Amino acid sequence: MTSTWGKMLKMTLFGQSHGVALGLVLDGLPAGFHLDTQRLQAFMWRRAPGLEEWTSSRQEQDKPQFICGLKDDTITGTPLAALIYNQDSNSADYQSWQNIARPGHADFTVFARYGMQAELIGGGFFSGRLTAPLCLAGGIAMQILEQQNIYIGAHIQEIGGIIDSSYDPILLTKEQLLIAGSRDFPVNDLPMGEQMKKSIRKAQQEKDSLGGIIEGAALGLPTGVGSPPFGGIENRLSQILFAIPALVGLEFGSGFGAAKQRGSQNNDPFIVEQGQIRTAGNNHGGVLGGISSGMPLIFRVAIKPTPSIAKEQRSVNMTTLQETKITVQGRHDPCIAPRALPCVVAATALALLDMMLEQGKIL
Amino acid sequence: MTSTWGKMLKMTLFGQSHGVALGLVLDGLPAGFHLDTQRLQAFMWRRAPGLEEWTSSRQEQDKPQFICGLKDDTITGTPLAALIYNQDSNSADYQSWQNIARPGHADFTVFARYGMQAELIGGGFFSGRLTAPLCLAGGIAMQILEQQNIYIGAHIQEIGGIIDSSYDPILLTKEQLLIAGSRDFPVNDLPMGEQMKKSIRKAQQEKDSLGGIIEGAALGLPTGVGSPPFGGIENRLSQILFAIPALVGLEFGSGFGAAKQRGSQNNDPFIVEQGQIRTAGNNHGGVLGGISSGMPLIFRVAIKPTPSIAKEQRSVNMTTLQETKITVQGRHDPCIAPRALPCVVAATALALLDMMLEQGKIL
Amino acid sequence: MTSTWGKMLKMTLFGQSHGVALGLVLDGLPAGFHLDTQRLQAFMWRRAPGLEEWTSSRQEQDKPQFICGLKDDTITGTPLAALIYNQDSNSADYQSWQNIARPGHADFTVFARYGMQAELIGGGFFSGRLTAPLCLAGGIAMQILEQQNIYIGAHIQEIGGIIDSSYDPILLTKEQLLIAGSRDFPVNDLPMGEQMKKSIRKAQQEKDSLGGIIEGAALGLPTGVGSPPFGGIENRLSQILFAIPALVGLEFGSGFGAAKQRGSQNNDPFIVEQGQIRTAGNNHGGVLGGISSGMPLIFRVAIKPTPSIAKEQRSVNMTTLQETKITVQGRHDPCIAPRALPCVVAATALALLDMMLEQGKIL
Amino acid sequence: MTSTWGKMLKMTLFGQSHGVALGLVLDGLPAGFHLDTQRLQAFMWRRAPGLEEWTSSRQEQDKPQFICGLKDDTITGTPLAALIYNQDSNSADYQSWQNIARPGHADFTVFARYGMQAELIGGGFFSGRLTAPLCLAGGIAMQILEQQNIYIGAHIQEIGGIIDSSYDPILLTKEQLLIAGSRDFPVNDLPMGEQMKKSIRKAQQEKDSLGGIIEGAALGLPTGVGSPPFGGIENRLSQILFAIPALVGLEFGSGFGAAKQRGSQNNDPFIVEQGQIRTAGNNHGGVLGGISSGMPLIFRVAIKPTPSIAKEQRSVNMTTLQETKITVQGRHDPCIAPRALPCVVAATALALLDMMLEQGKIL
Repeated sequence: MTSTWGKMLKMTLFGQSHGVALGLVLDGLPAGFHLDTQRLQAFMWRRAPGLEEWTSSRQEQDKPQFICGLKDDTITGTPLAALIYNQDSNSADYQSWQNIARPGHADFTVFARYGMQAELIGGGFFSGRLTAPLCLAGGIAMQILEQQNIYIGAHIQEIGGIIDSSYDPILLTKEQLLIAGSRDFPVNDLPMGEQMKKSIRKAQQEKDSLGGIIEGAALGLPTGVGSPPFGGIENRLSQILFAIPALVGLEFGSGFGAAKQRGSQNNDPFIVEQGQIRTAGNNHGGVLGGISSGMPLIFRVAIKPTPSIAKEQRSVNMTTLQETKITVQGRHDPCIAPRALPCVVAATALALLDMMLEQGKIL
Repeated sequence: MTSTWGKMLKMTLFGQSHGVALGLVLDGLPAGFHLDTQRLQAFMWRRAPGLEEWTSSRQEQDKPQFICGLKDDTITGTPLAALIYNQDSNSADYQSWQNIARPGHADFTVFARYGMQAELIGGGFFSGRLTAPLCLAGGIAMQILEQQNIYIGAHIQEIGGIIDSSYDPILLTKEQLLIAGSRDFPVNDLPMGEQMKKSIRKAQQEKDSLGGIIEGAALGLPTGVGSPPFGGIENRLSQILFAIPALVGLEFGSGFGAAKQRGSQNNDPFIVEQGQIRTAGNNHGGVLGGISSGMPLIFRVAIKPTPSIAKEQRSVNMTTLQETKITVQGRHDPCIAPRALPCVVAATALALLDMMLEQGKIL
Repeated sequence: MTSTWGKMLKMTLFGQSHGVALGLVLDGLPAGFHLDTQRLQAFMWRRAPGLEEWTSSRQEQDKPQFICGLKDDTITGTPLAALIYNQDSNSADYQSWQNIARPGHADFTVFARYGMQAELIGGGFFSGRLTAPLCLAGGIAMQILEQQNIYIGAHIQEIGGIIDSSYDPILLTKEQLLIAGSRDFPVNDLPMGEQMKKSIRKAQQEKDSLGGIIEGAALGLPTGVGSPPFGGIENRLSQILFAIPALVGLEFGSGFGAAKQRGSQNNDPFIVEQGQIRTAGNNHGGVLGGISSGMPLIFRVAIKPTPSIAKEQRSVNMTTLQETKITVQGRHDPCIAPRALPCVVAATALALLDMMLEQGKIL
Repeated sequence: MTSTWGKMLKMTLFGQSHGVALGLVLDGLPAGFHLDTQRLQAFMWRRAPGLEEWTSSRQEQDKPQFICGLKDDTITGTPLAALIYNQDSNSADYQSWQNIARPGHADFTVFARYGMQAELIGGGFFSGRLTAPLCLAGGIAMQILEQQNIYIGAHIQEIGGIIDSSYDPILLTKEQLLIAGSRDFPVNDLPMGEQMKKSIRKAQQEKDSLGGIIEGAALGLPTGVGSPPFGGIENRLSQILFAIPALVGLEFGSGFGAAKQRGSQNNDPFIVEQGQIRTAGNNHGGVLGGISSGMPLIFRVAIKPTPSIAKEQRSVNMTTLQETKITVQGRHDPCIAPRALPCVVAATALALLDMMLEQGKIL
């Protein structure tokens, strides 16, 4: 439950931000599945840094080297393992503030948990770079789910007060679901994306950063997936989504909005459509009592502003207990939401695949 | 991961809303701990129905019968098991709409998951009544944590647009934390509570229901608790909190609000206070990178409006696939937030105790 | 991993030998399976005491009361729970040697593990009586496996130097597999059984007890079941079999005998029979590299002599640390192997069912 | 439960016999422990091939490359990962019998489990080479246990009918425990070792192989370790020991011998020695009811003869279903027991360390 996740699908992450490599072991994949490694790489690049002006300039190819578990791009069924070598780590960035806890980062809490010998440079094991192997795993999960006509997508719902158009929770099509992910800046509504980018640039110029909200959705999930009370969709999704650094909130369907509604508004009436039981609305976000209803699965996550900012901040030297100032230089995303988005998609794919495997819906 | 939860502490829930009894098995408790069974019962009664005008009139004493694991109120160290007999179930209420899926409930999804032989009356295993054994377990966990000076509390943050005063995320005292829980209606600010009750009564008269927001907090949690990326505080709390029916959102610290902030606002500067590293603010809600910072742990959950309402709603007979109307008679809470609150406290206690046990901080 | 076992199938045991009741929670059973409760009870009675001269005279009906999870004898898919009330516990037997560790029993180690407040009377949670709910669970598992044409049986291979005829590891039929279990004294060869009983009676008259060897087998297990290296058949079977008190050894196929053989003798040549790959011999006991080969699964377990004997033994008072003598009066089996046998069958059924569920071979 | 093992300590193995590398991820190690990497390497070489005439001539240095989790040989507390590159794999050996199931190997069952795309060459993921990372993990566990004065050793009890002198189950000293492991051929009694080697050589000349028995022991394990019924010492040890290929039997204390004894012989009287409760004998092998008694932990495992033999054997081509002959050329140990021995020690160390961590005896 620390670096290993999953029930049928066991995912183990390892590595450090400024170490040799990051790594993944993924066990429990269906044997014989043919992987499209080009699409897999393309998915990973949605998360990789250095590609856009609004991302960190750290240049990482994030090309996985497969150690085992693949044979001619076919999954063998025994553990799949891969390394992603770090190519452009720059520890020098971190020398100037060694032992000074960066505000908003886990430096201090990791130090409290593991002691001074913990590798803190660049966040060590707790760096956002660990989402590279997460995306590798998630990209594989997505391809397996797609073979079952299950598709997962996400778009940026909000950055800097600018709001993208939401997914239609009832009529959402596969095309609408996936359009944002195919864009450099993952929004449904292009002009809104342009405004968001402007807003990010402005924050960066002001040595600051922005948070955001991501809306995720899944289409095609069969009715009846989920094992409440502790293995329901919300339990399983939340457990893995909160592994994404900077993710500080999660809501399903109408979520916090439901708290302001009445039952008669929030309840979704059941109807029959083409011989299938469906709901007329989708305030429930596709999940009732932890089990999928067959409606689009809809959720939103809150991403806090990137903690690394070039503005001077107050902090403490953890070894001397002296108060001091810190200016976090280095190559950081002024808003992490765009790159957190594929991680949200990846984590969702992993949770849903694990649940599908658990219920024998994929063998 | 379905009805059994936990790593060091294994909790297993069983029973059905309209069956003989509900049950709990709790294994991994520290041997030799002396339980205050009166306080335990008092805590359970905070969740029990029939006590206040704004709760269901179902009369349940919710008195656990301990089967094993206690000897003269001392924990033996081997599994503790208890039954809570159902005393006032009234299946007649449910006869009229048999096989008709109640909107907002899990009837349809449970049917899809387990088939027609699943016991659906009163929600069966998926009823809110299953939170009775959850509160029993949580009440035990709370007493063990209190011996370590760890206290958990919650208050109703919002119902029907009426907003209670929040916990002070920095200066929160044990008394402030626990005051709401000691009241019939769990708010910090009594006049706000009166207004909320009025609002609930009004909704009930209008055959409708309300949702709400609960703010939870923990004081005294040592710095350095949490095992990210998959066993961090957020992962562990979210996994169990989402087992509470009607819980549809969760945020830590500034949560969804952080998404609207800049890094310079949201980052909490580190300071030294009485020789200890602390933060000047607490937007991070006491958890950084999945690990406790030593600041108060602060989170909020969204509770959807009670799905059972006396207003007529559209629905479907699941066996005949005929569309129909349903009026959910029976004894239901017009707003479940007040009774969900002790469940939130209980779940939090269980997660934190399990993490403390895992790190050997309680033996 | 203490009182809860299993991956897809979660079994939780609770209760105490001299407490109110023993209990079982079994989650993950296939919904909709119709249980033959009479056959289930008959299986449990194979383990129950008081039925034969060579068993303890404690009179226990071992009739489970189902709390939930069954509806008209059909499995609902949500947790099944049952209590088995203790009806004939006699704690007076245990008064005379309170705090004196019975040799060969876990009194001392349980005391060291859980402290003096652990319930030790009659072995408490660690009594052989906890195998009653194990057999209840196993009896359910057997019926589900039988629907897949998987049958499990066992016979007493050896007691007091008297040796029963072994299962034919290649040609074993369902009838041969199950014959011993249908007999009062579970052997293949009736005259050998009579000699064993004589030998047990003699030991009992001499205030002593005997050990024994049980041979277990499973027929019909499909080829390809098992998830090595840590979830192979031997790992899974051994983990649960060693939960049976008094079980001190386990071997698969030729087992310890293989250690004395050469590869050319012990290797089983592959052949083709009716278009299927089979082995000409079965020294491998139906499992190669942790995965089933399709041949009969064959294993043997060693059962130590019942520790409770009426002969005077040396021991220690655990509270005073005084050396003393103990004569373990009470109602004890002079040889526990016959009653351990259904437990071995039950544990095997549970392990195999869990593995079948894990691989989606039963849904 | 397939390639990931453990509760507090999570070990994940990956790699293939003839792939790029083998790998290990080990999470949950105590942060701050200083590792003696030279001793670790020395331990691994006890398992490595190519070192002695009686081992495979495959030349593998088995030098781990650490990816993360170590900093100046100090354990950081976050996942430790290492690769062991394959340097001398020779797939040509395997070309001649491609698709022909080697008798006694898992080729056929792996094929049945994972299908034809499973990597079978050299046993793939199911090769004995996967015990290299197991020994790496176990060697680390041993050093941590030694700091607690817990020592684990093993010697070859029997090969080819030649029997080594057993450990004294009561008076065993640390020196006696470790002497065999320090020798090229791990026996207590050197002349017996010479005879065993002769016997192995003879079998090899006759194109055959031998099995053997290994006796393992642990000293210094505190009283009270173990969580029965499912997490007792026997459950935990057996689950991991059966991950060692060729291991086909396991017994604790007097084991199968106990089956032939009477209670009065097999029960170990309790006595007081230097103010401590001990047993006069040790037929129970240091474990009573799944919990350590403080006496030496004693167990024996049966190792089957190496399946790979140069003698011609009958087999089947798995793709054509044609019966055929196979002569398993290649570099194989004529008796695997000597090299299985450090694996047994490693597995034992891992299980005991995990249990010590679970009970908070090591933090």
